[in-house]
Amino acid sequence: MTKKYVYSFNEGEKSMKSLLGGKGANLAEMTRIGLPVPPGITITTEACNAYFKNDGNFPENLEEQIQEKLSWLQEKTKKDFGSKENPLLVSVRSGAAISMPGMMDTILNLGLNDNTVEGLALNTNDRRFALDCYRRFIAMFSDVVLGIENARFERILEDIKEKNEIELDYQLTPDMLEKLIEEYKQLVKRETRKEFPQEPVEQLTMAVRAVFDSWNNQRARVYRRINKIPDDMGTAVNIQAMVFGNMGNDSGTGVAFTRNPSTGTRGVYGEYLINAQGEDVVAGIRTPQPIKKLADDMPKIYEQLNDICATLEAHYQDMQDIEFTIEREKLYLLQTRTGKRTAAAAIKIAVDMANEGIITQEEAILRIDPYSIDQLLHPMLDPDAELDVVAKGLPASPGAASGKVVFDPNEAERMADEGNKVILVRMETTPDDIHGIVASRGVLTSRGGMTSHAAVVARGMGKPCVSGCDQIKIDFSAQQFSVGETVVKKGDTITINGSTGDVILGEVPLIAPELSDEFKTLLSWADNFRPLGVRANADTPADAKKAREFGAKGIGLCRTEHMFMATDRLPIVQKMILSENEEERKQYLEKLLPMQQEDFYEILKVMEGYPVTIRLLDPPLHEFLPNVEELIIEITSMKYTGAPQEEIREKEKLLKQVKALSESNPMLGHRGCRLGITFPEIYAMQARAIFQAVSQLVQEGYKVRPEIEIPLVMHVKELAQLRELVIEIANEIKKETGTDFNYTIGTMIEVPRACATAGEIASEADFFSFGTNDLTQTTLGFSRDDAEGKFLQEYIDKQILNSNPFITLDRAGVGRLMEMAVAKGRSTREDLLVGICGEHGGDPDSIEFCHSIGLDFVSCSPYRVPIARLAAAQAALK
Amino acid sequence: MTKKYVYSFNEGEKSMKSLLGGKGANLAEMTRIGLPVPPGITITTEACNAYFKNDGNFPENLEEQIQEKLSWLQEKTKKDFGSKENPLLVSVRSGAAISMPGMMDTILNLGLNDNTVEGLALNTNDRRFALDCYRRFIAMFSDVVLGIENARFERILEDIKEKNEIELDYQLTPDMLEKLIEEYKQLVKRETRKEFPQEPVEQLTMAVRAVFDSWNNQRARVYRRINKIPDDMGTAVNIQAMVFGNMGNDSGTGVAFTRNPSTGTRGVYGEYLINAQGEDVVAGIRTPQPIKKLADDMPKIYEQLNDICATLEAHYQDMQDIEFTIEREKLYLLQTRTGKRTAAAAIKIAVDMANEGIITQEEAILRIDPYSIDQLLHPMLDPDAELDVVAKGLPASPGAASGKVVFDPNEAERMADEGNKVILVRMETTPDDIHGIVASRGVLTSRGGMTSHAAVVARGMGKPCVSGCDQIKIDFSAQQFSVGETVVKKGDTITINGSTGDVILGEVPLIAPELSDEFKTLLSWADNFRPLGVRANADTPADAKKAREFGAKGIGLCRTEHMFMATDRLPIVQKMILSENEEERKQYLEKLLPMQQEDFYEILKVMEGYPVTIRLLDPPLHEFLPNVEELIIEITSMKYTGAPQEEIREKEKLLKQVKALSESNPMLGHRGCRLGITFPEIYAMQARAIFQAVSQLVQEGYKVRPEIEIPLVMHVKELAQLRELVIEIANEIKKETGTDFNYTIGTMIEVPRACATAGEIASEADFFSFGTNDLTQTTLGFSRDDAEGKFLQEYIDKQILNSNPFITLDRAGVGRLMEMAVAKGRSTREDLLVGICGEHGGDPDSIEFCHSIGLDFVSCSPYRVPIARLAAAQAALK
Repeated sequence: MTKKYVYSFNEGEKSMKSLLGGKGANLAEMTRIGLPVPPGITITTEACNAYFKNDGNFPENLEEQIQEKLSWLQEKTKKDFGSKENPLLVSVRSGAAISMPGMMDTILNLGLNDNTVEGLALNTNDRRFALDCYRRFIAMFSDVVLGIENARFERILEDIKEKNEIELDYQLTPDMLEKLIEEYKQLVKRETRKEFPQEPVEQLTMAVRAVFDSWNNQRARVYRRINKIPDDMGTAVNIQAMVFGNMGNDSGTGVAFTRNPSTGTRGVYGEYLINAQGEDVVAGIRTPQPIKKLADDMPKIYEQLNDICATLEAHYQDMQDIEFTIEREKLYLLQTRTGKRTAAAAIKIAVDMANEGIITQEEAILRIDPYSIDQLLHPMLDPDAELDVVAKGLPASPGAASGKVVFDPNEAERMADEGNKVILVRMETTPDDIHGIVASRGVLTSRGGMTSHAAVVARGMGKPCVSGCDQIKIDFSAQQFSVGETVVKKGDTITINGSTGDVILGEVPLIAPELSDEFKTLLSWADNFRPLGVRANADTPADAKKAREFGAKGIGLCRTEHMFMATDRLPIVQKMILSENEEERKQYLEKLLPMQQEDFYEILKVMEGYPVTIRLLDPPLHEFLPNVEELIIEITSMKYTGAPQEEIREKEKLLKQVKALSESNPMLGHRGCRLGITFPEIYAMQARAIFQAVSQLVQEGYKVRPEIEIPLVMHVKELAQLRELVIEIANEIKKETGTDFNYTIGTMIEVPRACATAGEIASEADFFSFGTNDLTQTTLGFSRDDAEGKFLQEYIDKQILNSNPFITLDRAGVGRLMEMAVAKGRSTREDLLVGICGEHGGDPDSIEFCHSIGLDFVSCSPYRVPIARLAAAQAALK
Repeated sequence: MTKKYVYSFNEGEKSMKSLLGGKGANLAEMTRIGLPVPPGITITTEACNAYFKNDGNFPENLEEQIQEKLSWLQEKTKKDFGSKENPLLVSVRSGAAISMPGMMDTILNLGLNDNTVEGLALNTNDRRFALDCYRRFIAMFSDVVLGIENARFERILEDIKEKNEIELDYQLTPDMLEKLIEEYKQLVKRETRKEFPQEPVEQLTMAVRAVFDSWNNQRARVYRRINKIPDDMGTAVNIQAMVFGNMGNDSGTGVAFTRNPSTGTRGVYGEYLINAQGEDVVAGIRTPQPIKKLADDMPKIYEQLNDICATLEAHYQDMQDIEFTIEREKLYLLQTRTGKRTAAAAIKIAVDMANEGIITQEEAILRIDPYSIDQLLHPMLDPDAELDVVAKGLPASPGAASGKVVFDPNEAERMADEGNKVILVRMETTPDDIHGIVASRGVLTSRGGMTSHAAVVARGMGKPCVSGCDQIKIDFSAQQFSVGETVVKKGDTITINGSTGDVILGEVPLIAPELSDEFKTLLSWADNFRPLGVRANADTPADAKKAREFGAKGIGLCRTEHMFMATDRLPIVQKMILSENEEERKQYLEKLLPMQQEDFYEILKVMEGYPVTIRLLDPPLHEFLPNVEELIIEITSMKYTGAPQEEIREKEKLLKQVKALSESNPMLGHRGCRLGITFPEIYAMQARAIFQAVSQLVQEGYKVRPEIEIPLVMHVKELAQLRELVIEIANEIKKETGTDFNYTIGTMIEVPRACATAGEIASEADFFSFGTNDLTQTTLGFSRDDAEGKFLQEYIDKQILNSNPFITLDRAGVGRLMEMAVAKGRSTREDLLVGICGEHGGDPDSIEFCHSIGLDFVSCSPYRVPIARLAAAQAALK
């Protein structure tokens, strides 16, 4: 039995996405529910996969099946492929199961040749139009199928326009177009040593093959990698009868959203161009009209479009993004899909739809990509800042960013690698620019609308974008842009506000965003569905306050070393470290004690009622000391400049001390609880500072819940000895102050040995908290500092790793060890509290895993708390 | 019912060691089989533990039980405690279940007081003897029980001898002794504000308490830590009727071994002193006579001793170490125990006894401590070297060592910590010197015999020792020793030969030892009992040859980086690393190719017939480059000395390159297979070199078994990609050379992720080899370089770790991950070959673990191969 590789639109429906691709399945669905869709057929993704398995040859029977369906299409349209009288023209479009905008290639007007162009001219009674279609087809086909760059055809076009002293395309006369076509064909012949293919079936076969091949072009592969789409899904090919939006002023083409994709506001939203083909809108070459204007231009069509949008939204139960073409006052739908939207819009749409009864609260929660809401939690422009606004474009992707101007995507990548914040400024962007957008803080384009490539991609990445800002004139060769008198050069800093479209000179202070009412509503729904607690990592009272505002129910990690770094403390800390004996060290520790006590007092107070996990000193001591290299340069210089011997000796002594403390692998060195074991007086001081603060607060009537955390434990005895030390000090302070207070003592789990011996460790621990940054480093044997700068990207490029394991938890490796630790720990102590406080605690994919292995809480930076609340609820609902 | 805390010697037997201690159980056993043992009683180890549990108070009923048994003892000896007429005198000795020589305190002549001393004088008809006993008792009791240093009594003795112008102790007259006793008692009164206890029962109670307390003195705790003896075993106390070796020239005391403890030769071996008490021999204050001389002095006693030795050896089925006393021509046994012996003697005795039919081959194998045979595998003095022998002492512990002379044990430790080899030189050693002996390569003493403290301890540790070398005069204050004209100062280098007793000036070249016939026999027996294979780690043909000689059946780890370090190659390697592109790099790699090929050719040839695991390049590349610090000093200097700008720029460029390659945690950085992934051309060159060598050897008729090993794999895809690369090259070379050959491809398992995902990794691996050095570092989060220099010792001192995890495998942590990896790996691939090639592969305890989790082989340095063969057999037999 032969596999069915080709379906007509009448044969499919929306559930068949993985076979027909998203576009094909939705075209079939719209056909099925009676919407005006030009007839067409879809070649399945299975055919694509079979093609690759078959070393780039069509699988058996595919050609025949295409022929058969083509016959059906000819009957349906009453047109014939290759007919001079009534030629069938088709578009050929790719369509994978998962939408990959701009990634795959499209060919329009296929079927045109020297013969059929005359038929089209005859039928449309517009020879100029037919010739224009033909020359577009040749250029597009040659670019996509034959690999001849479009720019070369553009150059020929520009030459002809110049020779004939005309400026705009539509001013081309039929004669000029004929000339143009001739020259296009000659170019093709020069390049391919063959005539431009005249036979429509041959054109079609070549086009299908090109669509298949485009599944593996570099842009597509990069997109799949970024979006974690498997390589073996394949793409379908949609072959659809052409309708023409470029048949004059009663024609047009556009895109529409059933709700506003930026804000989520109800009502059809979109753009259109009169007398244009579809690609013109998306490519952003001409700046289109807002859809409301269609009400004036073609009120009937506008009404019909509104009805269709309502139908589609009800049918799909989600906001739709549609493409339409008007051919001589008749509306056709060419695509519908679930519309991409900003995170803000996504939240508003989901909450509105749940309130409207279209979807449930659970569905509303599951609709929001927790990764996307990060952009809502990014800092915004300080409203009190004075803004030097030089230009205004379209508010294409919300949020604000400052950075150095750069005009080239490669340059953007380079500068970002060197640690610069950059803003990519382009006339318009194409899929080839993606790496530059990835590297930039934001994008500014001088052309293109809200649905231009730059806008769509930036929104997807949660980066601000201002598009269509035609006030700015870009001079690529001079590496600058100008707005009137103002000139902005490469490297100058600008700020863009993607929520307003403002382009501002210089850097603008950013402030924390406010959560919208819908966002708060959604999060409160989410809280009802999640068993996983959400805490924040916070080292300062300000962070702790922000965390509470964002809904954190406690602090999961309060690092104490940042407190040591404050400028007024560092000199004391350094003296403490360089002390030659315990007595001297204790003297400096005593000076630090009241400072630390004050820190803890404030943080515990802000978090009243909630637990606060305070981690005792963790980093290697030499992190607090001067840099070895600088000291060496200084000493060598002193020797040549005749500095006093005494001073040199002093410096040399310091150097010796610093070097004695420096380590070959500091990450695995004398740090964490190893400091507590070898210098118990340091941990004793910290414990004293904590408990004195606690006792003070208790006396003032606050209810505080300190959790003392011992870092980097690898053996139960480390914890046992330090636990004893902490308990002893707590008892001392209870006695000294006459107050009573509760506290718990637990440990970070951040080396594999702690996971392997979690059963033993749990016997001394009230809680575990996974320090997955270090645990990832030790489990993989990857130093983050060294890996991220050097080989990690190559590991992702070569598909050894799917993602950066320091961002998304490595479930197969680190995850297994965590699972083991939870099981062993709870088998010793059933009520063991287990959380995570590594960066992964704010990563949705990692949160899902944490939920699945039964953690009690995740802890992340305050700004990621809302993400964690949402992701935790989704994990529970999934 | 009350617990029985006190046993008479008639009530016990040798199997009751844990209750009665080793000494007590054996005294009971000897009593039981009718040997002449002075009667006595034993207080159990349970009493000791109860004492500690009871906060240092005697447990209920203990006092009464002692009294009861004392009555029995009085009846048995027909003497009375405290009787002026016929006083009972006893020795009080500790005795734990495991022998702890010199660690616990002993008291002789207990029961003497102002009254009973007269009875002793009367009974022995020797007032001088009685008074001498009394003054010794006061000093000993005061030192051990009352904590008054023995030196203070010595000083009084010296004063009196000076005043009376006599030199030797035995010249003291009764009057002088009476004066001495008076002054001793006054010293005690001054120090304790109490009279010296006169009541024998009080003396006994105090002594028992002191023995108990000595279980927890520092020396004992250190000994237990070093020897891994649990702290809660407790010690028994033996109270035995005194016999006197110091009753004149028809009395004496000595120690004897049933075979020679240095060589294993059959026949009684030992030393004795005429007219002396037991402690005099062991303490090494007087140099004793060899036991053979007893045949002349007291032929009957000599014969009786020989008979008893034969009886004991047959009874215990092992070589015995006995203590005896002759009181007026009557022989008494005071102790027997299994004798400590050198590793060479242990092997000879075991093999001899197995051949004599006394024990089985299995028992012979199990008798040898595999840790101890390390000393036989240590290099010996080169017989061709010219030796500047300055003195000769006793060959107290075999082997040879060179090092800097040091006179103080603390200094020895300090100097060793700074990386020096040291030889500890002392008049005699005491248990307080142990840390100094641990730190030294060997020990030289000017006093003491073959059974002196220094000799026993050094033999136990497998270090060479020359004792009783009275030719050397030590001047501690000048920190030097002299032999005639020759003066050797602290820090000068000497060599000692513990097998001959030679003391040699300067450093002497050492050579590899030969295995004795008995050793070879034992190892051949061992090979029959072990399923675990033994391979060697060898990077050079010479090492490979040595490994084969020692019985290695293949190479488990051939590192390729050492080959890169050779002086003629390093410049090429550096250029290769600093190449700016792949093409340039390939050019230098091509130069390295023939060199590597030659290396592999030789090693594979030497190991013909056996597998050779060749690990591809592992260390971070910057290890091959110049030192950053030196470069900085050089550049800064150049700037001040006006070096040409161009040269400075050149150096600065180099510095920049080196810094770009330097890493914050190189152990977790860009190394191992990460190099292979990012610079496939390096691994490709190595694979080519290996297979070209293989093909050459195959053509020459050799049978070679290369195993290509990919290091530091953490993800199956790393292995998959590099496996593909290696296979491709193998196929190329098969084609190029027209030869066929077999090879396998596997991986090191050295990061926890590899253990956690071993099931996946096994799908691409023919073998696993645990790199437990790195695996320990990553599992514990311990950088070996940083830990060993800094906090590791403190971790052991504070009993967090029992031993250095880089020497003995951490079973609870690293071991669990290994077990997981073996199980997962074999579940994917049943025939997966699994070995270990970390340093642990030569550690007996770790080998036992490797056997228990079912590894196929261990691989260790060539010199440890015999240890591994033995340990592997023991693991199987246990």
